[in-house]
Amino acid sequence: MDVKELWQIGLPMFINVVMSVVAFFTTMKLIPKFKNTFIKAHLFGIDMNKRTSEKIPESLGVLSGCIFLITLFLFIPVPFGSRFFNGEIPHDEFVELLSALLSICCMTLLGFADDVLDLRWRHKLFLPTIASLPLLMVYYVNFNSTTIIVPKPLREWLGLTVNLGILYYIFMGLLAIFCTNAINILAGINGLEVGQSLVISSSLIIFNIIELSGNQWKAHRFSLFFLVPYTATSLALFWYNWYPSLVFVGDTFCYYSGMTFAVVGILGHFSKTTLLFFIPQIFNFLYSIPQLFHLVPCPRHRLPKLDSKLDKLNISTTTFKYNDLSFLGKLIVNIFRIFRIIKWQEKDGYVITNNFTLINLVLLITGPMHEARLTIFLLIIQIICTVMAFIIRYPLAYIFYDI
Amino acid sequence: MDVKELWQIGLPMFINVVMSVVAFFTTMKLIPKFKNTFIKAHLFGIDMNKRTSEKIPESLGVLSGCIFLITLFLFIPVPFGSRFFNGEIPHDEFVELLSALLSICCMTLLGFADDVLDLRWRHKLFLPTIASLPLLMVYYVNFNSTTIIVPKPLREWLGLTVNLGILYYIFMGLLAIFCTNAINILAGINGLEVGQSLVISSSLIIFNIIELSGNQWKAHRFSLFFLVPYTATSLALFWYNWYPSLVFVGDTFCYYSGMTFAVVGILGHFSKTTLLFFIPQIFNFLYSIPQLFHLVPCPRHRLPKLDSKLDKLNISTTTFKYNDLSFLGKLIVNIFRIFRIIKWQEKDGYVITNNFTLINLVLLITGPMHEARLTIFLLIIQIICTVMAFIIRYPLAYIFYDI
Repeated sequence: MDVKELWQIGLPMFINVVMSVVAFFTTMKLIPKFKNTFIKAHLFGIDMNKRTSEKIPESLGVLSGCIFLITLFLFIPVPFGSRFFNGEIPHDEFVELLSALLSICCMTLLGFADDVLDLRWRHKLFLPTIASLPLLMVYYVNFNSTTIIVPKPLREWLGLTVNLGILYYIFMGLLAIFCTNAINILAGINGLEVGQSLVISSSLIIFNIIELSGNQWKAHRFSLFFLVPYTATSLALFWYNWYPSLVFVGDTFCYYSGMTFAVVGILGHFSKTTLLFFIPQIFNFLYSIPQLFHLVPCPRHRLPKLDSKLDKLNISTTTFKYNDLSFLGKLIVNIFRIFRIIKWQEKDGYVITNNFTLINLVLLITGPMHEARLTIFLLIIQIICTVMAFIIRYPLAYIFYDI
Repeated sequence: MDVKELWQIGLPMFINVVMSVVAFFTTMKLIPKFKNTFIKAHLFGIDMNKRTSEKIPESLGVLSGCIFLITLFLFIPVPFGSRFFNGEIPHDEFVELLSALLSICCMTLLGFADDVLDLRWRHKLFLPTIASLPLLMVYYVNFNSTTIIVPKPLREWLGLTVNLGILYYIFMGLLAIFCTNAINILAGINGLEVGQSLVISSSLIIFNIIELSGNQWKAHRFSLFFLVPYTATSLALFWYNWYPSLVFVGDTFCYYSGMTFAVVGILGHFSKTTLLFFIPQIFNFLYSIPQLFHLVPCPRHRLPKLDSKLDKLNISTTTFKYNDLSFLGKLIVNIFRIFRIIKWQEKDGYVITNNFTLINLVLLITGPMHEARLTIFLLIIQIICTVMAFIIRYPLAYIFYDI
């Protein structure tokens, strides 16, 4: 690669970083200014894990989201450089950029609507499906590559490649639904939503930078264009959302974050790798299933409970009669008991267990913990899982694929 | 044009109409279902022109807007027909569609944020500028035609055409700002916002249909793709917003409506004609300027006042000392007095005038009127102006241009 090429590749990235820095400081400045506006608009919550019952402004994610979007709007011409001005713009890349923005913008709108209107669960699954439509359509038009390479051990039966066809689109749609909701259900203590999103986005950034030297560098640079301003604006939000939270981030943040990860994964052709960085979220989702699908009674809030004397968080619990469970419910709780991943206490014919979330599971293992410490602990788990993901993606993948 | 061509042109339009009918019934069905959700979310207003003080859900425009957007998302592949599936999609048209959707989606998000957070005036000017960025960029990339044909009487000095360059982009940006805010300030009585928008969209639809026979038919069909579902969803909203309003539409509706009109005008290359359908809004804006720029004191609400004995609306007024006005303020009110378009009453050294809105001006001329009657009266004015617009656009334009 000669100097001119390096300049052409590097300059848009440099401008992106500069714009992201500006976006960071803008978000830092605007959040405190808008705090009271949100409270006035009845967008606030009471922090259930604090001794005070102060009103904390909620859904500030819409602010960081809008700044993220505005940054990208202004960035639109940059990747195309002089080609933008002399009419030689590559329309397929332009289409990708616009569809990605459309999906993220739509998800921000729907997320904010959810925050304000407090929609039901079934809407939460429906909304990301809608928002990912433009994205999937552009994927169809631009690539429509639904062929995957089969891992070596399975090639004897399946051959070198398998064309998944429509199944691949269903996979991508489910990815969008999963990413948007996964962060939302691993939540409830100060700083965790933004913290985990920052770990995921940083992991993806590192992965993209590694892959910049490969021949798919364009797709990975495309991903960086989104992830750098995303990370910058989220970092500013993190500053105010860290323990003790001055603002809450809302579903808006979880939704547009998830959609951003799904967008770069799908259009950057690394959707499977993206999923690798969601290991704690996948575990949390699988672990939550019995409660999400009401096989085990699910209270309105599953976040841990404050022991106000110690100022530490402890597990929250759910109580039920064993015989009220369905067959499937009984089966699952028994599997969980065998693996010792739930607390099980019987009293007066009732069973008391912890709520099935990763946060409660951590507290079950470690014992009561201070909220900030617990968030750090969970973020460390997220980082360890990222390291595992890199090991799976690089050394291990060589065993299964010829890369 | 042979049968095959007609089929290719007509089929997407037919599908669009069918989808719009579905969108209409969906909106009709969902608005009553969501009414309480909005009230619970503190999104409600008290109708100041009614004797009761019932809570009326506010910002229902976000619902019709989302259904409008979802309809268009699902419609994305349709205009391209089989070309969508065999990889021959014309990317420039695809880019137009996506950027139009992005601008409308972004405006819906920002409008809803304004409704919920009650943003300030300066934001109201800033938001449409942001939302129109993708649109203007696509205009630049796809057309960058900033040359206008000079009307005959001026050709002696300016020549046949003038290239406006950057000025043309400023014009388009201002058009977006004007369209989004113009509907918002001609508001305040039941059904007026949606009513005028429906007259404008229907006028544009008629104009597009007339122009379908011309050689710019593609641009006009593009416009219809947006305006038909827009009109369908707005009609359903109108049903519930008509006197006595069961729901209010919010800034969200005014914003995304204005952006839709700006989008089709800009990408359809008929932005000047679009403006022609805004005559009452332009008059109302010019008439409002003294109060909008605080040259004359502007109360928080300028909507007419209910005379509850008669159940009729009467003008609302503003009171000030003549000598407190600036030079410019004095000049303007005197011009208004010469043209007899304001009420002027002096009492104890104070001046009492009506608030400078088209609604008050109508009441000044007609005397107190029932709210529903007043809305109908204003909508008839809007329709008369549409007829005028068509006369200007067709017979008169032949005098100034060789068409």
